[in-house]
Amino acid sequence: MELLKSGKGKVFLVGAGPGDPELITLKGARILRQADVVVYDRLVHRDLLDMSPSSAERISVAKKGGHYSFPQQQIHQLLVQKARQGLQVVRLKGGDPFLFGRGGEEALYLLEHGVPFEVVPGITSALAAPASAGVPATHRGFASSVAFVTGHQADATSDPVDWRVLATAVDTLVVLMPVKNLRWIVSQLVLHGRSLDTPAAMIQWGTREEQRQVFSDLKNIVSAAHRESIQSPAVLVVGRVVEVGQQLVDQLVSARSSGALLQQRSIEQMA
Amino acid sequence: MELLKSGKGKVFLVGAGPGDPELITLKGARILRQADVVVYDRLVHRDLLDMSPSSAERISVAKKGGHYSFPQQQIHQLLVQKARQGLQVVRLKGGDPFLFGRGGEEALYLLEHGVPFEVVPGITSALAAPASAGVPATHRGFASSVAFVTGHQADATSDPVDWRVLATAVDTLVVLMPVKNLRWIVSQLVLHGRSLDTPAAMIQWGTREEQRQVFSDLKNIVSAAHRESIQSPAVLVVGRVVEVGQQLVDQLVSARSSGALLQQRSIEQMA
Repeated sequence: MELLKSGKGKVFLVGAGPGDPELITLKGARILRQADVVVYDRLVHRDLLDMSPSSAERISVAKKGGHYSFPQQQIHQLLVQKARQGLQVVRLKGGDPFLFGRGGEEALYLLEHGVPFEVVPGITSALAAPASAGVPATHRGFASSVAFVTGHQADATSDPVDWRVLATAVDTLVVLMPVKNLRWIVSQLVLHGRSLDTPAAMIQWGTREEQRQVFSDLKNIVSAAHRESIQSPAVLVVGRVVEVGQQLVDQLVSARSSGALLQQRSIEQMA
Repeated sequence: MELLKSGKGKVFLVGAGPGDPELITLKGARILRQADVVVYDRLVHRDLLDMSPSSAERISVAKKGGHYSFPQQQIHQLLVQKARQGLQVVRLKGGDPFLFGRGGEEALYLLEHGVPFEVVPGITSALAAPASAGVPATHRGFASSVAFVTGHQADATSDPVDWRVLATAVDTLVVLMPVKNLRWIVSQLVLHGRSLDTPAAMIQWGTREEQRQVFSDLKNIVSAAHRESIQSPAVLVVGRVVEVGQQLVDQLVSARSSGALLQQRSIEQMA
C-alpha cells in the first residue's frame, strides 16, 4: 500500500492552539484533513484528531506523570521514518510549535535527514488563556511589555530561568506550567523585587469549556490557587493587566456560554 | 431594515493573525462569515474581508502615516452604535486583539456601555513572523524565555520600554514595529549590556508571500536592514535562536513555495 503512494513525504509541525479546538488555524485544519499520520501530544483536543481522515494513523507521544514516555529522540526518528514512506505526517502540538514546543529541535533533525517540512503556527495558551479570562497581555497605561517563561523546571536545583532580572524586567509576566512549582516561582518573584500586592491570576483549561480562573495578588495567589484546586494545565499571569481581567471576566464567560446566539440568529433570518 | 433585525447586537474582537489569511482561526473565520459589519485595521488581508458576506458593511479604521485617521474614541463609539442597532459587529485586528492591539480598551468601553462582546484570539506576528523565517521563540540550550515589546514609540523622549533591564532579562527579545526607531532600539540594547555579536534578524511581511528576511548581529543589523530595504511591517528578533533560523530558513521558504504539493497529491490519489 505504502509503495503506491505518489509524491514525496513531508512533515508538518502544526500548532493545535490553546485548547478550544475551534482555535486551530484554517491552514492547520486543512493540513490535518489531508494527513496520513498524526503524531500528537497529550493536551491535543479529541475533536482535532477527528478532523484527520478516519484512515489516518494516530500516534500519541504523550508525556505521563511529567516524564516523556516517548523520548524526544524517538519522536524524531518516527517523523523521519513515516515521511520516508512517502506519507504526509502531521506533528500536532498543543499551542505553538516554536514556543516551548521543541519544534525547533524537530525541524533541525528533519533538515539534517533531508526530510521536507513546514511549520504552521498555533495560538499559544500564554496569550489565549489569560485572554479567555479577560486579561490582555498589554494594556495602555498598565503594560507595554510581556514575557513568557516555563515553570515546569522551576526549582532550587535546575531552574533555567533567571528570576533575578526577570522579576521586574517586564510589566506582564506569563508562566506556563506553573502548578507544580508555584510556591517557588512566586517566592522568587517577590524575593527579586516584585511587590506583594502585584495582581496575579491562575487560569486552568483556558479557552475550553472546563475553564476556571482565580484572581488574587502575589501575596495570596498560592493559597487562592490551592483553595480553588487549580490544577494543570494552567498558566500564571502577573501584572496590573490582571485588574482588566477582573472587570471583564464575568461578561466574557457569559458571552461564551451563550455562544450559540450568533448561529441561532442566522437561522432566524433564514426562516 | 435594521428594525427587522432579531437578536441582540454583539461585538467580536477577532484576531486576524500575522498576515497569511489562512492563519486566522476556524472560530474567527466562522464569525467573520456571519458578520453584519466588519471594522478593520490597515494590515488586515483583503482575503479575510472577502470572507464576510457581500452584504456586510466594511469600515476601515486604518492608521495613516503613523497617525490614527480614526481616533480610538471614535472606534469605540462606532462599535457601540452598530451593536445597538442589533448587528453582529466584527472588530478585525492584525495579530491578536490583546497584544498591542488595544483590545482591552475596546472591551472595557463595551462593558461600560452594556454591549455584549467576545474575544477571539489570533496568532501574533511576534511569534509567527520569526517562525516563518525558521526562528523559534525558545529552543533548548539557546532560550528558555522570550519577551515582546513594541518599538513604535521607542525614542529618546517618550519610550515606554525600560531597555535598561529588558536588554538582558530574557534570552529572546522580539520587537514589533521596529523599523522607524531601529537605530535607537539597537543602541539601547547594546548600551545596556547585550553583546554586539548577539544574533539578530529582521523579518518583513512574515508568513505572507512577500516575506523577506535578513540575518545579522546587533553590530550590523541596522546597516543590513537598510541594505536590504526592510520596511514596515516587520519584526526584530534578537538572541541565539536566530542561529536556528539561519539553518532552517531556506528549507522553510522553499517548502512554502511548493505548498501546492499536498493538494496536488490528493488530486492524484483521487484520479
